[in-house]
Parts: sequence; C-alpha cells; structure tokens
Amino acid sequence: MKKIYNTVTDADVAALRGIIGSVERVIAGDAIGEDYSHDELSGVRRNPDVLIKVANAEEVAGVLKYANSRLIPVTPRGQGTGLVGGAVPIEGGILLDMSGMNRILELDKDNMTLTLEPGVLLMEAAKYAEDAGFLYPPDPGEKTATIGGNISTNAGGMRAVKYGVTRDYVRGLQVVTAQGAILELGGKVAKNSSGYSLRDLIVGSEGTLAVVTRATLKLVPLPKYKITLLVPFPDLVTAIGTVPEIIRAGATPTAVEFMEREVILAAEEYLGRKFPDHSSNAYLLLTFDGASKHEVDLAYEQAAQCCLNAGALDVFISNTQERNESIWSARGAFLEAIKGSTTEMDECDVVVPRRSVAEFIHFASQLQDKYNVRIRSFGHAGDGNLHIYILRDKLDDAAWPRVLGAVFDELYTRARELKGQVSGEHGIGFAKKEYLAESLSPEWHEIMAGIKSVFDPNHILNPGKIVK
Amino acid sequence: MKKIYNTVTDADVAALRGIIGSVERVIAGDAIGEDYSHDELSGVRRNPDVLIKVANAEEVAGVLKYANSRLIPVTPRGQGTGLVGGAVPIEGGILLDMSGMNRILELDKDNMTLTLEPGVLLMEAAKYAEDAGFLYPPDPGEKTATIGGNISTNAGGMRAVKYGVTRDYVRGLQVVTAQGAILELGGKVAKNSSGYSLRDLIVGSEGTLAVVTRATLKLVPLPKYKITLLVPFPDLVTAIGTVPEIIRAGATPTAVEFMEREVILAAEEYLGRKFPDHSSNAYLLLTFDGASKHEVDLAYEQAAQCCLNAGALDVFISNTQERNESIWSARGAFLEAIKGSTTEMDECDVVVPRRSVAEFIHFASQLQDKYNVRIRSFGHAGDGNLHIYILRDKLDDAAWPRVLGAVFDELYTRARELKGQVSGEHGIGFAKKEYLAESLSPEWHEIMAGIKSVFDPNHILNPGKIVK
Repeated sequence: MKKIYNTVTDADVAALRGIIGSVERVIAGDAIGEDYSHDELSGVRRNPDVLIKVANAEEVAGVLKYANSRLIPVTPRGQGTGLVGGAVPIEGGILLDMSGMNRILELDKDNMTLTLEPGVLLMEAAKYAEDAGFLYPPDPGEKTATIGGNISTNAGGMRAVKYGVTRDYVRGLQVVTAQGAILELGGKVAKNSSGYSLRDLIVGSEGTLAVVTRATLKLVPLPKYKITLLVPFPDLVTAIGTVPEIIRAGATPTAVEFMEREVILAAEEYLGRKFPDHSSNAYLLLTFDGASKHEVDLAYEQAAQCCLNAGALDVFISNTQERNESIWSARGAFLEAIKGSTTEMDECDVVVPRRSVAEFIHFASQLQDKYNVRIRSFGHAGDGNLHIYILRDKLDDAAWPRVLGAVFDELYTRARELKGQVSGEHGIGFAKKEYLAESLSPEWHEIMAGIKSVFDPNHILNPGKIVK
Repeated sequence: MKKIYNTVTDADVAALRGIIGSVERVIAGDAIGEDYSHDELSGVRRNPDVLIKVANAEEVAGVLKYANSRLIPVTPRGQGTGLVGGAVPIEGGILLDMSGMNRILELDKDNMTLTLEPGVLLMEAAKYAEDAGFLYPPDPGEKTATIGGNISTNAGGMRAVKYGVTRDYVRGLQVVTAQGAILELGGKVAKNSSGYSLRDLIVGSEGTLAVVTRATLKLVPLPKYKITLLVPFPDLVTAIGTVPEIIRAGATPTAVEFMEREVILAAEEYLGRKFPDHSSNAYLLLTFDGASKHEVDLAYEQAAQCCLNAGALDVFISNTQERNESIWSARGAFLEAIKGSTTEMDECDVVVPRRSVAEFIHFASQLQDKYNVRIRSFGHAGDGNLHIYILRDKLDDAAWPRVLGAVFDELYTRARELKGQVSGEHGIGFAKKEYLAESLSPEWHEIMAGIKSVFDPNHILNPGKIVK
C-alpha cells in the first residue's frame, strides 16, 4: 500500500526544534551529512529532510506524535551498519538518529540483566558485561552496530549454535509507538505468559512497528575457558558435512564457521597479516567455551575426533588469547576483505537447516560458471546461516542488475526448496522485501500488513521496509 | 468488545459432520461428556454445543472456515490441564478436541529438532527425545499437558533458570487461522530475521489467534550427569535470599525450587510416602546437569558453599536416580496435595525479578492473618515465578469470592510494584484477564485487541480469553 506523505516544511522544522528544545540537534536540508543517506547496502540512497539527534524517549515520543499528525515519515537509525537499506529514509522525512542515546543504565547482578539505551554499541555492551564477569552472548560480526540495530534485525552472529540469537536475550523493551505512546514490554522477569508477546513482535521488526528506546538484556555467567580449533579440509563440502556429526556427538560448540582459501587470502591481503594456515582449500573454525577446562577439553577432543574421522587434514588448537584474536580478527575482516576485492557487491543472507548447508553452498558455487560472475561465501555452518556475496567486478551498468537479479532468484528459490528463510540475521529492509513477499503466502502477508497498521495506522514508521 | 454469536443448529452439526466425514467424531449436545465443560480452574464451566475430535490440519481448517462464516465460536482444547479456564468454551459453540492429533512425526538428529502434532503429551515428547539421546528442556509440573497447551501458554517449568521456557524451544509452527488458512511459521532453521515473528505471537496466545496443528521443537544434547541438592534453611526468607547469590557465583543450576515444611507434609500425606527430610521450616531444592561429572560437581559444590555461607542448616546430596525421583515426585505432587487439603482453591502465578522473590513471598504470607485465610506457596525461586494458592477451607459462598478478590488485588498490585508480570507460565485465560487488563496501559490493550482482530476478524477463536 503506497502512502502519500507530506513534505517537510520550514514550519515543521521549527515545530520539531520546539519539541526537542534545541536547534543544534534538529538539522535540516543540505546541512545534513551525506553519511545519513545510506547504510552499508550499495545503490540505495536518500537524504532525510530533517535529521533529529534524539536524547531520550520523551523526545522520540514528541517527534513521533508530531510526525504522525502531519503524515511525515520517520526512519530510526543506529550506526548505519545494516546491509539491507533498513536505515535509509527512502521516503525522505525525518531521520531519528538514535546513536546519542548511548548510556548503559544498569547491570543487575542478581537478575543478570544489562539495561541500556539503544545507541550503545554492541562492542561496548559486550565489554561492559565482560568486565563485570558476564557474557552477552549474541556476537554479530559487526561490533560497531548499535544494540538497537541488533534488536531491530534480531541479529544472530557467531555464537548462535550454542547461545541462540538476539531475541533470546531481550528480556524487556521500552518502545515508543507511532502515536507517541511509551510502552514497557516485558522486563527483568525470566518467564512471562501475560498476553501476546509484543516484545517478540518488536524484535526483528526493523523500526517499522515502534522505536526502541531502552532494552533490558539477559546476561549469562562468563565462561572461564575458551578454545579455538582451526581444521583444514580437502574441500568445502567435506568440511561442512562434518558439522552435523559434531553436533550429533553432543559436543556443542559455541561457534562453527566455515571458510575457503580464497576468502582467507583476501583477508590476509586486507589485514596485511598472515592467517595461521592457508594451505588447504577449506576450513572449519570452531570455538568451545565452558565453566571448566575439563568440560571444554572434553568437548573439543570429541569434535576434533569427529573432524578427523570425516576427513580433516589436521586440527590446529589455539588456546592463547593472542592466537585466538589473530584468527578471529581475520574472520571479522572477511566482509571488508571481499568488499575491497571488487567494485561493488550484494549479498544473500539465507538460513537453511543445518543438514542442507553443504548442498546449498555447492549450488551457489556452481552459479559462478553459469552466470560468469564471482561468488564468495562464508558463514555460520553451525546454524545454517550463510553469507553469499555476488561480486560485480567489471560488469557494466546493464549487466550487473541482470546478473545479480538472476543469481538472487536462483539462490532464494533454492533456499525455499530446502525449507530455508530469506534472512537469517541481516533482516529484510528495503533490499530483500521482494524476496520475502515471494516466500510468504498471501494470508501471511495480509497478517503482516494488518499488524503494521495496528501499530502504525498512518504508516509513518520506516516506510518501504519489510512489508511490500 | 462483546460479540454476538450464532447458536449451533442441527444443520450446523450436519454440515460439520460433512466436513469431518464422520459422525462419531462430531458429538453434539448432551452426548458430550461433562469433562469437556471445564479445565483445572474451579468455578467456570460450560458445555460446548459441538465437540469435534479433529484428526489433521485440513479438518481444523474446514471447521474454522465454516465456523467463521457462520459466526460460531471455536475453542481448542488439549488435555484440559490448564489453570485459568483457557480451554473452557465460555460462549459455547465448537470445542476442538486436539488430543487425537498426537503423532510424533520426526526426530531430526542433524538439526536437533522434534516435529510433532499438538496433542502429544509433554511426558511423551520428553521421553521420546530422551530415548534418542536428547533433552527437551521445558519441564512444567503437569506432565500430562499437551505440547499444544504448553505452546499456547508459553509454559515455563522447573528448568527455566538454565534452559528458558517453551518459547525458546519452538522453532516452527503450523497453524490454522480463523479463516481456515494453513500457515507455516519458522521451521527447522536456527536463525530467522525474515519479517515479523508471527511464530512468537502465536506462542502464549492461548488459542485466541490461530490453532496450532504441528510444532517443530528444538532439542539439546541430553546432559550425561545430574545431581539434586536438598538444602534445609531455618526460614523461607533466608532460603530464598540465597538464590541470587548462587546465580551470581556463576554456578547455573538447572532448577531452583523453594518449599515450606507445611507443603512437604501435605505432599507426604497425599503420596503416603516420606520426603527425605521435613525437620526444617524451609528448603531449597536445586538440580545441576551437565556433560561431565567434573562440570556438575564443580557447580554443585560452589552452590552448596553459597547455601552454607548464607545460613543453610545442612546440604543433602542426591545423585541416584531413585532418590532423585522420590524428591521430584514429591515436588510434582505439591499442587494436588494442597488441593486435597482444602475444599476449593485459586492460584496466583505472578513472576517477579529474582531479587524480589523473598519480599513477595513474605508479603503474601502476611495476608493470611490480614484476611484470615490459608495461603500456601511454592515455586521457582530461580526464575522468580511463584505459585501462591489461596485456600477456601470453610469460607462460605459470600465470603470466599470477597476474600479471594481482596487477596488477589493485593498480590497483583504488589507484583506490579515490583515490576512483575501477571502470569509467569499458566497464562491469562478467562480467570486472569481483569488483572492483565489492569496491568496494561490503554495503548497496549488497544494493540492487543488490534492484533486479535487482524488474525480473527470475527472473534470466533476462543472468545473471552486474554483480551477483555
């Protein structure tokens, strides 16, 4: 449903400055930096008409109430690290810069919760918890994303195999509705059967239903022991095929990543630093953590044996912090390294059942020849969430969208056949909504649209995202 | 919003028999057994006009489509073990007996999922998983409840401290909407950021949004070692006050239950069997599980030390299956034992932050003198979910509702002040909807009502439950 919005006028800017009580934090027109016109998705840009650097929930409520009455679109933005255009104000209007709401409010040791504002960075929240002896388990690759952004996309990350995803750690949310009401959803409590879980509806809704202004996150005790295994394999299919065996053996790893030599070489070049080994075609990277050395040793030995039985060429053990960091910093650089190796790229973030990962990766790889395009992938072998990058290289303006569209169609169709989902952790945003729409039945789409209208009758919140 | 429904006619019964293709499974009027008029909530009864023993999703879809077109209310029912009247057809109409849809469809070892129909009993699902070397962690006290019922109430249970609640283990759902569409929500995948999580909206919605016809549950590897500690304390406040210390120490127990001598004595009488100890006023019952003996020993020793430091009188260790079962069967009998000790009772299932449990229990206990009524409690000290039973004993028909209402008002008000929630695990159903309404802001209530109308425009699904 296409909505007609009002254009932001000088009077609107003045009114918004009145609501915020500041001129500096309400920036209009050309004075808005170019950074605010995009996120990490290539090719989709639009400047907002007004940028508002909000400081608290009351300001957010005031802005939304006004925007709702005036039919002005509002797009919330964290650090703009998203990959699907979720924070791009594609209809113009107001961009709510949430990054200034970045206070850590409370670490409650009794209830093991961390309460914070949405602009706190993931790396800050994780560090804060760790310093107090706790772990905030969700661990997406992009550590400079905000917690608000993580909640909005239900970000997953490396540790989902053992610990689950962001949703599993959101205990309570304060949100502001499109009409400007401030709601407290959930809280510190560990159980809740008190009506529909609006909290879970907000998680993953990418700013289209309400604006998150505070979150209470669940923490777990910090595991005392950690070990990383780097396991070379003759080929990727063998490597990935080992993963269900490891899981079945009961040796629950914290993370299982897969990687190919080409991606490692790109990361080495990007970082100017050698990876511990790059002589094999494919690798699994596994971590284990736990409360005792004994527990961790037991798990990794079992996993190592599984790998060797399945055809691994060797097992490298890394139990020093220094070496762990060198391996994981390389893993953290994969995205940037691939990006740096080409002119432009787009990515597919499907998730398939664990047993189908090898099949899907093999399928994706074959598309390189079929469409004469470079495709690179790495991802979370343990949880079935794959990141497949289609690289533009020298494709011209006519060929690129055609090839990209064709490859995407093949990938999303195959993922559906394997009972996968369009997005494992990056969200739908602007870029993937056609693919989401294709994957949903008309009834499901109707329910999603209905829920959107319940929360946001005038469709002012992040228009053009998720729901077609 | 009060809806006017059509009365079920002979023509409706004939049409429904046509849809089901069976006379035996569509039972009308007086032929319906009295059991179907109630669940475990006292005082609320109504017979359905038609009882339909459905066999598959297509039948459910056919019935709902017909009922929706004819404005006939439909209430789904599992085993009727609920405590809040959720399965009582208070507006009459059709009762969908889901208990015949009780096939376990698949245990997928690679993806560690169990797919089953909603009528499978919790104890059957748990046993099936265990026999294959897996654990289905949610562990509500009532093992003869159906999985469908557990999903509908987001049932919690004993192991929530370590493992979370039912919601955390629901990977995929097949549901039928009020209009008769069959939707697949989620699946076997471990991560998902593909639009609004309708799955999480259905979990805990008590049959008011859609009817669950299949579920895919997440399993975890079966812990190889388990130990139970029974820890006597001089008084309940000391006992409960120890719990946050245990959790802070990082020794994550699987379960932490608290109990008072009076409840233990009632259970002994009910079971005709002695509890290992009943000489102290209050007890904590803790379990620990893990992949190795070393891990479990480390955790329980740390917890035992915490208890002794905090004033525990002793620590009894139980590591034989026989002894564990004797303790846990007593724990499992508390509800029935309390029920057997009085004429009638009602219960409050609030959840408060862990640190506030002792304060809340103390508050509840004082109401006994204030209102001259017996109050008994036990519950999940580890996760803050309390079960407080108000016993009618010899109160007459006039006094009982007055006393019950006054005590409930005090309890729910205090829980709100402590930032608790109306229901931790039993749900809202019919019995608690006034208290839920009181705890929600008007905006929240409006959103809940809006969501209800999106899923079920004619409000035929389980009317009179959750939403006022």
